[in-house]
Amino acid sequence: MVGFLACDWGTTNLRAWRLDGTGKVVAERDFPFGVSRLKRGEAATLFAEEVRPAMEAQDLPALLCGMIGSNLGWTVVPYLNLPSRLSDLKAALHRVEGEGAPVRIVPGLRGEGLGAPEVMRGEETQLFGWLALDPARVQGRHVVCHPGTHAKWAVLENGAVTRFLTAMTGELFDVLGKHSVLRWDGPADDEDAFREGLSAAGEGDALSSRLFTARTRVVAGDASAETTPSYLSGLLIGAEVASLPRLLGLEPGADIALVGDPALCRWYEIALRHRGFAPSVQDGERAAIAGLLALQDGVL
Amino acid sequence: MVGFLACDWGTTNLRAWRLDGTGKVVAERDFPFGVSRLKRGEAATLFAEEVRPAMEAQDLPALLCGMIGSNLGWTVVPYLNLPSRLSDLKAALHRVEGEGAPVRIVPGLRGEGLGAPEVMRGEETQLFGWLALDPARVQGRHVVCHPGTHAKWAVLENGAVTRFLTAMTGELFDVLGKHSVLRWDGPADDEDAFREGLSAAGEGDALSSRLFTARTRVVAGDASAETTPSYLSGLLIGAEVASLPRLLGLEPGADIALVGDPALCRWYEIALRHRGFAPSVQDGERAAIAGLLALQDGVL
Repeated sequence: MVGFLACDWGTTNLRAWRLDGTGKVVAERDFPFGVSRLKRGEAATLFAEEVRPAMEAQDLPALLCGMIGSNLGWTVVPYLNLPSRLSDLKAALHRVEGEGAPVRIVPGLRGEGLGAPEVMRGEETQLFGWLALDPARVQGRHVVCHPGTHAKWAVLENGAVTRFLTAMTGELFDVLGKHSVLRWDGPADDEDAFREGLSAAGEGDALSSRLFTARTRVVAGDASAETTPSYLSGLLIGAEVASLPRLLGLEPGADIALVGDPALCRWYEIALRHRGFAPSVQDGERAAIAGLLALQDGVL
Repeated sequence: MVGFLACDWGTTNLRAWRLDGTGKVVAERDFPFGVSRLKRGEAATLFAEEVRPAMEAQDLPALLCGMIGSNLGWTVVPYLNLPSRLSDLKAALHRVEGEGAPVRIVPGLRGEGLGAPEVMRGEETQLFGWLALDPARVQGRHVVCHPGTHAKWAVLENGAVTRFLTAMTGELFDVLGKHSVLRWDGPADDEDAFREGLSAAGEGDALSSRLFTARTRVVAGDASAETTPSYLSGLLIGAEVASLPRLLGLEPGADIALVGDPALCRWYEIALRHRGFAPSVQDGERAAIAGLLALQDGVL
């Protein structure tokens, strides 16, 4: 392998790594080129004129995952239907047109959710990266949770993604914090209030009612307003972890792998332990690199 | 009775009725004086200089319910703790200071909710109005739902409000429609899409996940974007009616009285029937007038 340029090109930014022929990261950098900010046709130009030179990767093959394969990105790469294995994804890498070193985009995945389709772009690469980081994981059934604005919960069975569900928990938190009667300023870093929110989440039912307790515990109770974001974070994450594992058929005490931002995974870890699950945490960036490497390796 | 001026003075507007000595409404009018728009101390002046003259009620006693009794209103009237009967509320009417014909404010109610206090201001008057409209309702146990931005579900037992819960369903609908990835323009008037949302609500669990189907059914499915508000309305109201009656101990098939805006009650009626309940609908304005009359009558 001659090395390659690996990118996680998402909605809000682009994270790039140059890997050498042994798969080692030799350069890394963030670019403010999230697809939500791109003008039509701009992706190819920015990549050639900004990303490649900055990464000293003019002549290297490139592999991109994330929303860059959507209608807001470089070109639309069709979703791959479940069940999907690493080899399926490899076979479906989409080479974009153009001169110079090849650029390929990882397709997203599409499955059936709660009465409507489910789609992901970017998380699939972290899922297969999580598998690649420990080949023993190819055996058996695993549930992986990728927390975030739109959290993804995926079932992997003998190396194939067989099902996944989305929870827009992060977006609910943001929208309620900015625009609702529960709005606040300040950080969500109070573990006691977070745990209070976990307890208030019940069995994940009656969320529109439980949410209101974030207000009344302050207005008509004794809680301080500064604890509202932590309480609400606990309530929303608590409702998610009370519901999603059950929908995916997990028994109490089951293992759940968290893959994503370590700080956010830490809160999910507390929430999962609170409900009796056995969480592990994998840094999402490392999983993304491992996934891109597994997809690139051997197909140059 | 000499007649009186009855007002439902809420967050966004003030609705006033002049009743004659027989309890008949002889004048009615809306004023854009919702407490969210009031400057400090302005309520008394607006009432004396705008509302009374416009209603030709300069010398009549006045009875006000709603947020006018909050810290944003005329003066803070303490909540009455549950259980609370009409006679308790009558005894706690708060007469505001000032010259001229007396002005009294109905206190709100306070109870214990889902691990946090619950409060209402204004809906209590409609609850007792609903009782007053059919005295037979003073017997037995009834559940009354008042839909709205913050829907209230109350239990009435032998004439006393014994418990209530809030669901911020209406606010979630507004906030998601304006500020989330699910945002839309246009009306929520498609009954088929509403019913599709009801079915997608499941048992009221996993709401942050089910909400996401409002997006994927359009982006990755075959649904038209114009149906999103109706679908989401069905999903949110469906989740509410799947959860709240259970929390209040209602059996399938139970009677539930809807008291409020008739157009909104109509959607709740569809949702309750969908889950096998037996809803009835009472116009909220008529209930408010009946409640104010029951509170005023005999205590002049």
